[in-house]
This record gives sequence, structure tokens and C-alpha cells, in this order.
Amino acid sequence: MAQIILAESAGFCFGVKIAVDAAKKAGEELGGAYTDGPIIHNKQVVQFLESLNVRELEEGQQLKEGDTVLIRSHGVPPKEERRLKEAGVNVIDATCPFVKKVHEKVRQLVEEGYFVVIIGEHKHPEVIGILGHLEESGGKGIVVSNMEELIKNLPNKKRIGIVSQTTQSEDFFREAVGYIAENTEEVKIFNTICDATSVRQEEVKKIAPNVDIMIIIGGKHSGNTNRLAQISRALNPNTYHIEKADELQPKWFEGKERVGISAGASTPDWIINEVVERIKEITK
Amino acid sequence: MAQIILAESAGFCFGVKIAVDAAKKAGEELGGAYTDGPIIHNKQVVQFLESLNVRELEEGQQLKEGDTVLIRSHGVPPKEERRLKEAGVNVIDATCPFVKKVHEKVRQLVEEGYFVVIIGEHKHPEVIGILGHLEESGGKGIVVSNMEELIKNLPNKKRIGIVSQTTQSEDFFREAVGYIAENTEEVKIFNTICDATSVRQEEVKKIAPNVDIMIIIGGKHSGNTNRLAQISRALNPNTYHIEKADELQPKWFEGKERVGISAGASTPDWIINEVVERIKEITK
Repeated sequence: MAQIILAESAGFCFGVKIAVDAAKKAGEELGGAYTDGPIIHNKQVVQFLESLNVRELEEGQQLKEGDTVLIRSHGVPPKEERRLKEAGVNVIDATCPFVKKVHEKVRQLVEEGYFVVIIGEHKHPEVIGILGHLEESGGKGIVVSNMEELIKNLPNKKRIGIVSQTTQSEDFFREAVGYIAENTEEVKIFNTICDATSVRQEEVKKIAPNVDIMIIIGGKHSGNTNRLAQISRALNPNTYHIEKADELQPKWFEGKERVGISAGASTPDWIINEVVERIKEITK
Repeated sequence: MAQIILAESAGFCFGVKIAVDAAKKAGEELGGAYTDGPIIHNKQVVQFLESLNVRELEEGQQLKEGDTVLIRSHGVPPKEERRLKEAGVNVIDATCPFVKKVHEKVRQLVEEGYFVVIIGEHKHPEVIGILGHLEESGGKGIVVSNMEELIKNLPNKKRIGIVSQTTQSEDFFREAVGYIAENTEEVKIFNTICDATSVRQEEVKKIAPNVDIMIIIGGKHSGNTNRLAQISRALNPNTYHIEKADELQPKWFEGKERVGISAGASTPDWIINEVVERIKEITK
């Protein structure tokens, strides 16, 4: 049997993994749950969860006492969480720990007297949650999503605190932080960008040159998976990008001893596991 | 007599003004003083102070008890100040208040547990003074003077504090801050760049379009004075760049009612005053 090296960072990021696991558990143990928006943009996962009676709340739908609501990895404003609890709803909090850290840091900045700049997208659920924590802690701040907006809206404050939506671009973060520091006496920054994507790429760079064949799993139209395959291919021409286990061809593995595997951010563990099992079978 | 509008920011910056005044006072009231390096790069000012027995310490020169030493606007490391005081030397501290603020901020960052990055030139006396305060407060840190150096030397620390030499370029400051924030979990920045130069330019922009003639005083080879003249000329073609009062030509002022004046950073007040008096005479 070939030796299989599976990237630790393959597939779901930490936060999505927690949320999908929690949703699965709610389906299996509590008979179902509602989520305020989709848990993940992966059709197979959503269908699987629907089969466990975990589904999106519909617009205007009223919750009943005893219903279960799952808070997604994005988090929610604290008053929304309270509203649910006061309504007698069973709340499962699957907010990503990295997003919770942003909430904490915003509260810390407010306590220390900073005006807060949130680098993020205005209508993104994560940003709405962060803004809720800013408001609840009595702080003042703004959301900026591009340089034009920043230059137009940055108020003249002596002390500014900065946090970022966890999935923001590092390029915009860097530019925004530089501009704010240039125009402000004191700036305190928490770099709350999550590095899941770059960590996944770095791991592929380490594995690809040291294996005989590299399998990258993920949607053919998934940007982050394509990028992963591209990086791998540059270091190891024996790179194959597949969506599912049944695409694996036995001839790829002839004479190969070491097989590397990684997967894009929206690839669930069970698909990765199927691929691993199938390779074991092919090479046994 | 023409109406004369003299820019408030004309001539010496705040810190140099304090140091030159202190040197003059030491010469007149104490019979002289030593300075550790030149107080200002202006020959006329240095000659004038030498006439009052205020002169640079020579290399290896020993100080005697009762000698007076003037600390320049750049400041010195605290142990140097102590050494002088312990030697029974009379110390006049003319450290620029803005430089003292950098010392305070470095100490605050060390107290709060930050590793300190000083954006500045390695051998500059101001930076040597700042490093002295870092060392004395038990802190750790580095000096970086360009991006290459920063990228090479930035240590992997969770919490980094940043201060700047007061005369650093805003472009490098902005770029450095962005890079550090991108690669560090928490960053606290005190923007200690002194805005004397930009304030002087902004004031010329306000005055030049509203006067009939604009006089810019300062060395013909002084970069900051040339830039001032350039800015003024773009807004008012009747702009003249002079070094001294005797260059003023009466015909420039014919039919002119409002005269604007500014001066570069190394132009002493008495040269500015001579120009003002001469214009009053010409236009009376």
C-alpha cells in the first residue's frame, strides 16, 4: 500500500468544521435545527444537513419555544443571541473561535478608549456581528471596505483601534493600516485576518515536492482549490485535481510510493475520507 | 505701507527655535556653553553663537566641573545626561519636546510589554537618544531604516510597538507600518513624525493665492526652501526666493498691496525680521 500524506489543513477551515459538526450533531441528536443563512456554500453538505432536518430559516418565519437555532461560524450581534434565548429558543453557538476573538478585541479597544475601524464588507454577516459587539460595548466606529471609502470617512481622532473581518484581503488591510497610522497619533491594531488559506497553500508547498503523486480535492470551479492545484503542479507535475473519489484512475498510481493529498476550503471531510480509502484500495 | 502676511510656520521648527534660544541665553548669561555636535546646519547662526562662546565639543575634549553643556534638540541617551550631571557639569536640556514625547512613548510601549521597532536612521543622534531610553527601561527592539532591512530583521513577535524618528519620511513609515501589521498579531503605533515641513507647506498654500507678491526666504540650495518656493509659484507667479534682505528689489513691490512671506526650516528669525523691515521700508 502506498504511503499517504494527508495535509492537516486540507478541506474545511477550523470554523466551518466546527459549524458543520455542530449542525450534524443537532440533526442527529436533537432532530433538527434552523440556521440563519447557509452554513456553507457546498450543495452536497447542505443537502446532507437537510436530510437531518437542519435547514435555513425562511424569511419571516416565526420560531417556536423549543426550536433549536444554530449560530453559524460568522457569529451574530449579541442582542440577536439574547433575543433568541429570551424567546425560549435552544441556541447552539457555532461562532468560529477566531470570529469570537474579533468580538473580544473590539470590546478591548472600546474599553481602552479607541475609536474603532473595522476593515470589512458592510453587509457581511460577520461584520454585522462585530458591529453588534461594538455597539453593545458603547463604542463608536466605522466599517471600511476600500481605500476610497477610508480616505473619505476616516474621522480626525487621536486614538484609533483597528480590527479586520477574518476573511479580508491582506493587501487592503496593509494599505488601510498604513494610511490610518500616517494620519493618526496613536493606532492599535489587532490583525484578525484568519490565515487558513495561506496555511493550506504553505502546506501543499511542503508536501508536493516530497511525494510521487499529489491529489487535490475540491470543486473544479472553486478558486481556492484551483490555486492549490496550480501551486502543487508547479512543484510536482504529477498533480491531479478531482472532485470525488470515483475520478481516481488506478494507472496514476502505478509505481508510486508516496501520495500527497490536500483539499480546498469547501470540501467536507467525508469526501476526503472517501478519496483516502479509495487510494488505499487502489494501491494495496 | 503694504500689508504683510508672515506665515506662522516660517523659519525654524519649534525644536530648533528652543535650542537656538537656549544657546543664545547660555552665551549671554553664562558666558558660553558646549554642544555635542552642531545645533543647526546654518553657518551664520553657528558663527553668531561662537561669538557668544557657545561652541561644539571637540573630540576627546574633557569637561571640567562648572562647564555648561547644552543638550541639542535631538536629545541624548539618559545615561549620557546622568554622566554629565555626575561630572558636576551644568546641563541645559534643549531636547525638542516632540523628541521627548518619543522617549515617553518608547517607555510606555516597553511597560506595556511590546517589542519596539524604531523607524529611523541608525546613527542619527535622535535615534541614539531614543535607543538609550529603550535600553534604560529594560525593553527590547530594533531600528529599521528601509523596507529591505525591515523584512530581513523583523522578529516573529506577537506584540510590536512602533515609534518613529521625528523627521522620518511618511512614505516609509506608512509602508513599514503596513508590513508589520500584516505580519504581527497586535501592533501599537505612535506616529511621532513631526509635521513641521508639511505644516509650513500647507500654510504657503493658504497664503500664496491671497496676496499680490510672495517672498520665500532660505538657502538657494535648501531642499525644503526650494520646494516651498515651487509650491508658492504654482499658486502665485509673483513669487521670489531670496536668501537675505538685500536681494529685495523695490520694483517687485510696485502697485502691490498684500505681501506674503514664509521661510525654510534653517532660516533664523533675525533674517526673517530683516526682510520684513526692509519690505516695510520699500513700501512705505
